[in-house]
Amino acid sequence: MSAKTNVRIFDTTMRDGEQSPGAAMTLADKVELGRQLDAMGVDIIEAGFPAASNGDFEAVRAVGEVLENAVLCGLSRAGPKDIERCAEAIRSAGRRRIHTFISTSPIHRKHKLNMDAEQVLDAITASVTLARNFTDDVEWSAEDATRTERDYLRRAVEAAIRAGAKTINIPDTVGYSFPDEYRAVFEDLIANVPGADAVIFSAHCHNDLGLAVANSIAAVQGGARQIECAVNGLGERAGNAALEEIVMAFKVRGEALPFETRVDGPQLLRTSQMVSRITGFPVQFNKAIVGKNAFSHESGIHQDGMLKHAQTYEIMRPEDVGQGATSLVMGKLSGRHAFKKKLEELGYSISDNALVDAFQRFKELCDRKRHVFDEDIIALVDDQISHAADSIQVARLRVVAGTDGPQTAEIDLKVDGEQIWKTARGNGPIDAIFNAIKEAAPHEAQLDLYQVHAVTEGTDAQAKVSVRLSSNGRSVSGTGADADTLVASAKAYVAALNRLRGLGNRTNAQHSAA
Amino acid sequence: MSAKTNVRIFDTTMRDGEQSPGAAMTLADKVELGRQLDAMGVDIIEAGFPAASNGDFEAVRAVGEVLENAVLCGLSRAGPKDIERCAEAIRSAGRRRIHTFISTSPIHRKHKLNMDAEQVLDAITASVTLARNFTDDVEWSAEDATRTERDYLRRAVEAAIRAGAKTINIPDTVGYSFPDEYRAVFEDLIANVPGADAVIFSAHCHNDLGLAVANSIAAVQGGARQIECAVNGLGERAGNAALEEIVMAFKVRGEALPFETRVDGPQLLRTSQMVSRITGFPVQFNKAIVGKNAFSHESGIHQDGMLKHAQTYEIMRPEDVGQGATSLVMGKLSGRHAFKKKLEELGYSISDNALVDAFQRFKELCDRKRHVFDEDIIALVDDQISHAADSIQVARLRVVAGTDGPQTAEIDLKVDGEQIWKTARGNGPIDAIFNAIKEAAPHEAQLDLYQVHAVTEGTDAQAKVSVRLSSNGRSVSGTGADADTLVASAKAYVAALNRLRGLGNRTNAQHSAA
Repeated sequence: MSAKTNVRIFDTTMRDGEQSPGAAMTLADKVELGRQLDAMGVDIIEAGFPAASNGDFEAVRAVGEVLENAVLCGLSRAGPKDIERCAEAIRSAGRRRIHTFISTSPIHRKHKLNMDAEQVLDAITASVTLARNFTDDVEWSAEDATRTERDYLRRAVEAAIRAGAKTINIPDTVGYSFPDEYRAVFEDLIANVPGADAVIFSAHCHNDLGLAVANSIAAVQGGARQIECAVNGLGERAGNAALEEIVMAFKVRGEALPFETRVDGPQLLRTSQMVSRITGFPVQFNKAIVGKNAFSHESGIHQDGMLKHAQTYEIMRPEDVGQGATSLVMGKLSGRHAFKKKLEELGYSISDNALVDAFQRFKELCDRKRHVFDEDIIALVDDQISHAADSIQVARLRVVAGTDGPQTAEIDLKVDGEQIWKTARGNGPIDAIFNAIKEAAPHEAQLDLYQVHAVTEGTDAQAKVSVRLSSNGRSVSGTGADADTLVASAKAYVAALNRLRGLGNRTNAQHSAA
Repeated sequence: MSAKTNVRIFDTTMRDGEQSPGAAMTLADKVELGRQLDAMGVDIIEAGFPAASNGDFEAVRAVGEVLENAVLCGLSRAGPKDIERCAEAIRSAGRRRIHTFISTSPIHRKHKLNMDAEQVLDAITASVTLARNFTDDVEWSAEDATRTERDYLRRAVEAAIRAGAKTINIPDTVGYSFPDEYRAVFEDLIANVPGADAVIFSAHCHNDLGLAVANSIAAVQGGARQIECAVNGLGERAGNAALEEIVMAFKVRGEALPFETRVDGPQLLRTSQMVSRITGFPVQFNKAIVGKNAFSHESGIHQDGMLKHAQTYEIMRPEDVGQGATSLVMGKLSGRHAFKKKLEELGYSISDNALVDAFQRFKELCDRKRHVFDEDIIALVDDQISHAADSIQVARLRVVAGTDGPQTAEIDLKVDGEQIWKTARGNGPIDAIFNAIKEAAPHEAQLDLYQVHAVTEGTDAQAKVSVRLSSNGRSVSGTGADADTLVASAKAYVAALNRLRGLGNRTNAQHSAA
């Protein structure tokens, strides 16, 4: 059909993305996101690091069960236990990949691995050979590749290819490279390593200097045919290359770059919003592609040009990435059938029971809010989905607050079916609410983040609150939506608390692996 | 001292940045930011578009009065009235530049200007010639340069140079270019346009595809010696190249790029936070350089490496950009002298009167909050500074809210010295508060954004609320800080209302210019 060369999109939102401090995801989050990434056309989904914890192991396996087209990938260090555990986790999927890595740079060899160059080469051969016993689809990564001596990197890549790796990843682990330099690494390896023509080279860029997307594209120009990236640019430190920017760069500049991806542009915004909701990480207004201002024109000069001819200032249309005009569609008089149809349009298929609940909440919202936008409905349904299996629930809340003296909150919590009533004071109404929740459901968690977003604009906006809690090195987010910010806050805190309980003995992906 | 070539940093936070929908700044905001940019070492500060409105004119003039080293620049279209108005505004500064522009691309010539190619060349000659009557420092920009026919662009640049332009800006107006392409434009112009060796070429990149920083650096590699950029990457749509990423790329990769800027790295974070506060635009957690996660390491593997040797995963130190460990320093027992000293350390010099107020509020905060962090003090002082000239003030607030029924707010507002008491109901406590404020101080403004940030972490965090209001096409932000989110919300709304009043007959920078 197309004369363009395919570039594989390898999504690491659930692995490198989850390594962002505070972005830990539950198994249910990962399954939901895995389904969406698969539906959007991502080629390979790295769902976690199975050897890191039982939670990661189970999440990788669960994601594999829902994938229809994408390859399921698990990360693994070079040791046999890691690789075997990874192989077991990915068995749930039809198409599966083991991604094993080891550091190759002198600074990492010395300070992190305490191994000499030959020992690292032996480890590469052993790890890739073992991984190939479990699947033909083995990817090998040279951690900190861009700070590795070039001749040694060639030898390391050659060892991985000889041992049977089909994909060779050359990460810019510290976000250090410039595009020309990064491209040159690929050109060199492809030209000089025996067997390079039979494997796929992959880029994995970090954004510490704001260059991750440019470096990824330069790598493709240098011969790479896979890009590792994350939705919203999530990842360690300043994050990875943003999936949505990579995908749209190829679409918008197709005439300059004869490459294409399988990713469906109009699903980008929804996926971005899903990741933002799951992690509690807001997307900044001027974020390329998925920010709320990405297609907004403020200046009269630009508006004038836009009215005369959209292309004077726009290189892509908002609808190409799923950004549309907010549509006002549903109201007090809408019936359950129309509501169900609307949900389907918005991409939700929910059970009949859940529909009854959602419709009830929708009608309540219509009573409280003049205009109900698509975003309100999304917030309402998302809130319901993410609270489906909650052992703690907010039954009733009453708050008295202001400038004049102690703020008090009175809460009825259902904890494992039992209703508990508590009151507490606090430093501000939110603190009072959280103290009351702590009285009713005692726990040790620490509040790391509290955030309020208005879901739609206007004074009667539905508020959406994100709360991040951490306990024993585990970190979770919860969100709550309500027209009342205080109620949304209580729901968000309780949602996070439920997740923390749900994690059980799961530890954060990487902690137990180190 | 240094063998490196200087690259000028041209900050357009107050011009292109202000064109972000909702980022309008007041005169006082611009003066404060101008002072900070100047102190940080920015070479040229574009403070606005004087012909756009009286407000912009006054702001450019006021910024000029406080600059000690930086060049003051005003933007201007090609017409004589624009240029004369700009010349008048910048007269306040010791060093001044007129920046005049016209579109050169075929799509803009036809659909925006309705001029043919020769008419545009005549306009370039006339505009630059006129501007040179007022100052020797004239910059000319070819709007939409990257979509302009290359031979025509050469002729346009030549016309500007012949007419006396000293800086030639080649903007990637629609954020369309790839680094190699953009670099090639500069190489071509510098090699082929007569007189090119006597002028400074400038890059101005938009981030629609996530490539603004890479393109800016590529331009310098191609011969550009000025970069136009904005703090936090603010600007139309997905914004401009982020100043902080540009500056740090040159510092971190000095060995690969023999260029340097005059900007002081350790002031980057504070400047970023100031812009975020003024505009109400949050900085995303994984934003390079200035995001709160930019230097955070979550995974055990990375933490382990960091403990063994920081450089295993870090290419710059947090303190290089002003990100430090949060220091716990002040408390109940700290006296006024220590408090003043702390403020000076944090970069504030405030009047004795303001110090008395700030110290009083600091003591109140110490009573309410166990740990007082630097960020708390910054929030407290910023709140006070930005509310210095307020005609409306919150005297008292009482709110009753929760799941059970109408939320009510009771407020005492001081409006122009008179105390007004009102109560109102609302859809949630925030809505009730805002309704009560509207009762006490009637106005037409519409709420565009409501946002809550915890300033520091922990349940007794001081909340910082941003509110954006718009009225008659003008848009303003207000912020409020308090341990009580509801009180902070009332303060933020009133702050925005005061700004809207303060703007008087000022219109948004660009609207009246179109």
